[in-house]
Amino acid sequence: MVGNAALEGRATLESVAREAQVSRQTVSNALHRPQVLSPDTLARVQQAIDRLGYRPNRNAQSLRTGESRLIGLRVDPVRTPSGGVLDRFLHALAEGSRAHGYQLLVFAPQAPDDDLSGYRDLLTTMTVDAFVLTQTHHDDPRLAFLAERGTPTVSFGRPWGAEDDHHWVDVDGAAGTAQAVDHLVAQGHRTIGFLGWPSGSDVGDDRRRGWQQALARHGLQPGASLTAREDLAEARAAAGELLTGPTPPTAVVCASDVLAIGVLHALRRLGRRPGTDVAVTGFDDSPAAALLDPALTSVHQPLEQVAAEVVRVLGTLLPARPVPAPTPPSGVLVEPSLVVRASSVPDAP
Amino acid sequence: MVGNAALEGRATLESVAREAQVSRQTVSNALHRPQVLSPDTLARVQQAIDRLGYRPNRNAQSLRTGESRLIGLRVDPVRTPSGGVLDRFLHALAEGSRAHGYQLLVFAPQAPDDDLSGYRDLLTTMTVDAFVLTQTHHDDPRLAFLAERGTPTVSFGRPWGAEDDHHWVDVDGAAGTAQAVDHLVAQGHRTIGFLGWPSGSDVGDDRRRGWQQALARHGLQPGASLTAREDLAEARAAAGELLTGPTPPTAVVCASDVLAIGVLHALRRLGRRPGTDVAVTGFDDSPAAALLDPALTSVHQPLEQVAAEVVRVLGTLLPARPVPAPTPPSGVLVEPSLVVRASSVPDAP
Repeated sequence: MVGNAALEGRATLESVAREAQVSRQTVSNALHRPQVLSPDTLARVQQAIDRLGYRPNRNAQSLRTGESRLIGLRVDPVRTPSGGVLDRFLHALAEGSRAHGYQLLVFAPQAPDDDLSGYRDLLTTMTVDAFVLTQTHHDDPRLAFLAERGTPTVSFGRPWGAEDDHHWVDVDGAAGTAQAVDHLVAQGHRTIGFLGWPSGSDVGDDRRRGWQQALARHGLQPGASLTAREDLAEARAAAGELLTGPTPPTAVVCASDVLAIGVLHALRRLGRRPGTDVAVTGFDDSPAAALLDPALTSVHQPLEQVAAEVVRVLGTLLPARPVPAPTPPSGVLVEPSLVVRASSVPDAP
Repeated sequence: MVGNAALEGRATLESVAREAQVSRQTVSNALHRPQVLSPDTLARVQQAIDRLGYRPNRNAQSLRTGESRLIGLRVDPVRTPSGGVLDRFLHALAEGSRAHGYQLLVFAPQAPDDDLSGYRDLLTTMTVDAFVLTQTHHDDPRLAFLAERGTPTVSFGRPWGAEDDHHWVDVDGAAGTAQAVDHLVAQGHRTIGFLGWPSGSDVGDDRRRGWQQALARHGLQPGASLTAREDLAEARAAAGELLTGPTPPTAVVCASDVLAIGVLHALRRLGRRPGTDVAVTGFDDSPAAALLDPALTSVHQPLEQVAAEVVRVLGTLLPARPVPAPTPPSGVLVEPSLVVRASSVPDAP
């Protein structure tokens, strides 16, 4: 490994301009507003930058503008079941931030039991322009902590119970399970059960509500409903109970893919054919859903859309993009979509 | 949303020291060397920082030290099949970097077809102390690009064909498939087939080599071997051929979980019991592996260990942690481990 070019830094804006035979302003445009340059000019400047090994002093720039162009995102050991949803969101957010000239600073909590772990440290040791939160919950202390400090913050997930006080973007979980009910009713099902998480989880209760409300809309009585934690063995046991109860459902809507997979396993153990004898729907469209046999019908969360909305809202909050008036807290609810597979329609792919 | 405290910044190191009734040096220690302070003192300083809303000017610090304490990691749309491995690695790396006082800057490529996309931009617009690469391949242009610029770089994944020229940490894939063979031989299997990716992929060829070498070590002839791309329908078709060929194997080692799931589906379509009639092993221990019925025996990659090694090697390259002599390029090969489930041992959990 040779010497660190970053520390040598002999090339300057001037020498790059000379090398590329353009003005200083053009080099500056290439770095900060590439879209205003012709592709040819941009390529010429880029090549000069490469040849000279030029690295603009970002820290000096930050001092001047008061901006770091960094968005902080904490990645937590997954507390609520997510089926890879948060990882997909991270990718989409990295993409969305980049398109707006922001970079993503990803950090892990130091003390998993401390809600503020990581945020506090980052605010005292680094400069971050804004935070994106995930896995928000009732009375989430992070929201108050960051609001008090005036740090622009948008959460993916509702600040349950304080929806009017913060900026957030979320997927409409109740609409997702309602779509599953609509689909099953269209397939001729009339006794539609539910397997959800123990009540008290905001996300889980919302998904149960969607199932209930959709049944009422169709003039149907709710079928049997049981709960299990996000654990395959627990889900399998609860599903066995649900399927052999006094009024066995012909279809089961589930609050997650893991719960739905538990229903598929229970059906097989009972000698009944998933998809053919009893229809099953999951939630999250996790990678496993498409790999099962039969493949699992599941509610898909449009995370690219969520990330784009998060970045759009951040754009209205960040000093770099002043808006005429301060933006009042706003919630954006994004519609999910059902991916139909063989667990609910036997001849689906 | 109130004003941005970051831009006001009225609290200073001095006012925090006064508030906490400690010296300036102690405040500085709390920020940079918290381990040298007693928990009580650290808490007192932390509270003073919180009360005053103090934010040290990280940019000014960076200018002074020439360090950003940022490690760049590009997240790519997954090109080679990975079963969530890269997302698990990202989490482990965030954790490992934090423990060493570094933060992770995560970015997406702008032009997916340009190998250098993102790296070039980041070097010209931001200050990053080092890069961590993933999905390295033969003649990977990123390695030469970053080496020329003297940017400390460590890859998760071998720089195939240039193992002696760069710093890398990888999981020993051949050792993983060899473990699968050892396990199957111990279960009494003598005709052990292989389902891999089309030859030419470094990772896939390595995993096939492990199967071949382990069979030779046991004095066994290699069973039938076929290939399929990372696609369930293709895997299912290839597996059907493998299982109904002239010398049908009693066990199949696969280069990925998706390929192994194809074998499970093919067995079911042939009316044969996976795990009981034919044993199957996968690679990556993806979330789906434990959710299948029967659950899939699979090779697990120790990504926490990989991330810790990556951070350790970075530590020897970064100017902040000078070592007596420049570190020569080094490769670290980490051993994976087989997770045994019902697809290879019928009464396994």
